[in-house]
Amino acid sequence: MDRVFIYDTTLRDGTQGEGISLSVEDKLKIAARLDQLGVAYIEGGWPGSNPKDMEFFQRAKSMPWKHAKIAAFGATCRPGLKASEDANLQALVQSGAPVVTIFGKTWDFHVTAALRTTLEENLRIIRDSIAFLKEQGLEVMFDAEHFYDGYKANPQYAKEAVLAAEQAGADWIVLCDTNGGTLPQDMLAITQEMVFTLRAPVGVHVHNDGDLAVANSLMGIMAGARQIQGTINGYGERCGNANLCSIIPNLQLKMNMECLPAQNVALLTETAHYVAEIANVTLRNDMAFVGHSAFAHKGGMHVSALLKDPGTYEHIEPEQVGNQRRVLVSELSGMSNIVYKAKELGLDVNRENADTKQIIENIKNLEHQGFQFEGAEASFEVLLRRAFGEDPVPFVLDSIRLIIEKRSDAEFTSEAMIKLRVGDQVVHTAAEGNGPVNAVDNALRKALISHYPFLGDCHLTDYKVRVLDEKDATGAKVRVLIETRNHQDSWSTVGVSANIIEASWQALMDSFQYGLLKHGQVETDPVEATEVASEAAATTA
Amino acid sequence: MDRVFIYDTTLRDGTQGEGISLSVEDKLKIAARLDQLGVAYIEGGWPGSNPKDMEFFQRAKSMPWKHAKIAAFGATCRPGLKASEDANLQALVQSGAPVVTIFGKTWDFHVTAALRTTLEENLRIIRDSIAFLKEQGLEVMFDAEHFYDGYKANPQYAKEAVLAAEQAGADWIVLCDTNGGTLPQDMLAITQEMVFTLRAPVGVHVHNDGDLAVANSLMGIMAGARQIQGTINGYGERCGNANLCSIIPNLQLKMNMECLPAQNVALLTETAHYVAEIANVTLRNDMAFVGHSAFAHKGGMHVSALLKDPGTYEHIEPEQVGNQRRVLVSELSGMSNIVYKAKELGLDVNRENADTKQIIENIKNLEHQGFQFEGAEASFEVLLRRAFGEDPVPFVLDSIRLIIEKRSDAEFTSEAMIKLRVGDQVVHTAAEGNGPVNAVDNALRKALISHYPFLGDCHLTDYKVRVLDEKDATGAKVRVLIETRNHQDSWSTVGVSANIIEASWQALMDSFQYGLLKHGQVETDPVEATEVASEAAATTA
Repeated sequence: MDRVFIYDTTLRDGTQGEGISLSVEDKLKIAARLDQLGVAYIEGGWPGSNPKDMEFFQRAKSMPWKHAKIAAFGATCRPGLKASEDANLQALVQSGAPVVTIFGKTWDFHVTAALRTTLEENLRIIRDSIAFLKEQGLEVMFDAEHFYDGYKANPQYAKEAVLAAEQAGADWIVLCDTNGGTLPQDMLAITQEMVFTLRAPVGVHVHNDGDLAVANSLMGIMAGARQIQGTINGYGERCGNANLCSIIPNLQLKMNMECLPAQNVALLTETAHYVAEIANVTLRNDMAFVGHSAFAHKGGMHVSALLKDPGTYEHIEPEQVGNQRRVLVSELSGMSNIVYKAKELGLDVNRENADTKQIIENIKNLEHQGFQFEGAEASFEVLLRRAFGEDPVPFVLDSIRLIIEKRSDAEFTSEAMIKLRVGDQVVHTAAEGNGPVNAVDNALRKALISHYPFLGDCHLTDYKVRVLDEKDATGAKVRVLIETRNHQDSWSTVGVSANIIEASWQALMDSFQYGLLKHGQVETDPVEATEVASEAAATTA
Repeated sequence: MDRVFIYDTTLRDGTQGEGISLSVEDKLKIAARLDQLGVAYIEGGWPGSNPKDMEFFQRAKSMPWKHAKIAAFGATCRPGLKASEDANLQALVQSGAPVVTIFGKTWDFHVTAALRTTLEENLRIIRDSIAFLKEQGLEVMFDAEHFYDGYKANPQYAKEAVLAAEQAGADWIVLCDTNGGTLPQDMLAITQEMVFTLRAPVGVHVHNDGDLAVANSLMGIMAGARQIQGTINGYGERCGNANLCSIIPNLQLKMNMECLPAQNVALLTETAHYVAEIANVTLRNDMAFVGHSAFAHKGGMHVSALLKDPGTYEHIEPEQVGNQRRVLVSELSGMSNIVYKAKELGLDVNRENADTKQIIENIKNLEHQGFQFEGAEASFEVLLRRAFGEDPVPFVLDSIRLIIEKRSDAEFTSEAMIKLRVGDQVVHTAAEGNGPVNAVDNALRKALISHYPFLGDCHLTDYKVRVLDEKDATGAKVRVLIETRNHQDSWSTVGVSANIIEASWQALMDSFQYGLLKHGQVETDPVEATEVASEAAATTA
């Protein structure tokens, strides 16, 4: 089985996609997942272009990478400047990334029209930049920008340019179809020619402007390339980059190439959805391999044949990529997952039991309302325990009131007042915040901390809002996801409502409850537990 | 220039897609557009399967088709039954369509496992069905279902089956990759073999399960096939059918094949959007050739090169497919994007001018704070016009106050009070809402509508929230995007703040301002304009 090196550029080229914007925190989370998936390289960003990317590389240094090497991206030095004096190249070295990828010109038209220098100076730039980075002991990749268009315009010069990179010591020569318009037949022929010409291993980096990026990447491999640069879900500028979620299963399951450790191919669907969630974009249902509809069968004839043998209408088994078959007429999915999870928590479930069925019905109802427990397992656990009578609510709410105000040119202010009972004490307090949710969070903490000093160690580390049914505009439901962390643990909770304050309140309540429950902080006064149960029901219904 | 016959099956196979459902009226409208586009065949439906499809064929008979022939779809006759006695085949004849396409089995496994008959009886079925339809004087196509999988499993039998169709008089043999999992290299080799074997012209019909349907269709043509079956926007079951909107420009603009009358290729973008509109699904921005982002440029370096020559970063001219170039304004952009955009608005910018530099600096500052104008072009326009002294603020805010409350088990309530001056009137009013933002929106409309009845025609159609710097949790900034629509237009605006109410308020203000500006509703009282300018600055800073 030949190895293909997967080079992920979701964090760099992927963020050129319209509507894709990632914080440093987002990038680190995605990188950790990509490493777990088993890609060979993760391109983290362009350290010379902005401080956010530089911060990523600083923080990435101390993370425990299992499979992947971290790569920093940049350009060759400027015309007329020595590589060692180029601030961009210096930033690449300072990033501390063990791999550096620099792009350079190989299309004569681009050298003269965009870079505005001579063809000879461009070769000097390539040689000098690569030699400088190699002297720093780095693994160096040369991304030959516009290579295929350049080759069609002036094959002689395009070859000279990549040979210059090879001679200067580049570890990989990566041929790029930057404008994304190359046809598969040309991709195959040109890549083949270059694999024969070069001694350095070859990679391909293609864009999807012709709707051919997946096929073109496969053609690259057919031609002898051994590295693919692409992004999760094909994110990228214009029509996107080559989609790794399609390329990997085609190569590994059909062309017998090793892109990932064999058992990790089944992580693809989960990874695709995770990255979409972090990037806060909806994953298309019809995505090949990983989409919700990729193995969904609608036609009655198909379904009846499928029941006889799934091979009749499926090109692979959905489980191979971690996806699942769906039959659109009868949706029974979910039940097994719920039972599985409840058993894992040691709760007494039985598929045939009426109580269990009722609980499952309730959970499915919540999901129908827009709750999603996939990213909020703490809420799911609180919910299940509550349903099974184990209710760890630590206080009873009397009232909460928020005032948000703006007078003329002054700033907006947010103030929350809260009144609640903890044990036999009544607490009535107030707090301000940057915004309304922050004010509620502050007031609730203030009210509870003397009773539960444990909360002093808990911090909200993530807050996400997603609008459901966007067409209802400002009247639409929102889903809020909150992540909480203490010094040893972290957990996520969810709330859904047309009122963002209510949705946030639900997620905050679940977070506090779960934290207290997990850390043995809950008092078990039976009288309180009953009152509290109805309160909990009101806030999560 | 070789002719490729485009066979559109949007109305039949396309409607198998999840969420795609078309009335007879819809189908007739789409068919008229497809005819105008210039496709060779339009498959209208399966007349034997439902009365809706039969009605389509009845009504299609009297329509003035200019380019296209109408095709009816169905299956070969049932095992053990004569073709002339098969109700399905009779319905095809009765449809009155001049072209009939029937699918039959060519994969031995399907004959025995799904159809449950013998290999010999299946050949009889094919021969008999085609001969019967040919006797009726129809143009007959044979869709060889699962041909590529069948060929891989038993090439001998797969060939026998299509040869049976050819001998019985089929006008076209269409090779289908029904499960959508065939690789381009296999597609090429197998189609080539069949083009050599058959005398009848060959077509290909492929699905997109491997994310390869466009490439596979091109491979079919490379191998000598001369018909492509596909759908507009790639609609279809699971991961969709081959997307004609990508296939046609690749063939016609790059491979020198004639799919449509030359001047009609420029109708593709409009047709794609029209079909999406009728099918009531959102057209993806990143669709190749026809998507809103297909020629959208974000990276500053790209934009600066584009200004020198569009060929540097575009594989074709957008106008060739009826699309257009867009320059996005975003954190990754340099000065070039902003200058380009301002020029588009007819504002007097000059890269060397100090005022222009200051304006650009301000915009970059806002971007740094989390504003993102690429999805909010109306906010960007309001901002630019304001910077250039064209400030269309229609009112002066005195105060806004929101109360959100929950008592014990009761529901959350949201109430907004607003006081503002419009012209020389003071308006003071209040409204409730599902949530706080909805309450503010309701109160603001209530305050302004008597002065600007135009607002009665404007509706918020989309509301998105994105948390920036999520590690700051409930104290983090949020970005709100709002889309507003009236009967003729739609526009998007943005707001950013740690306070979600403030962010929503900013986006609402921009939306109202832009709407009033665009529709000539703004009053130009100079005294008011000055007061209002500082107000605007306060709300967008």
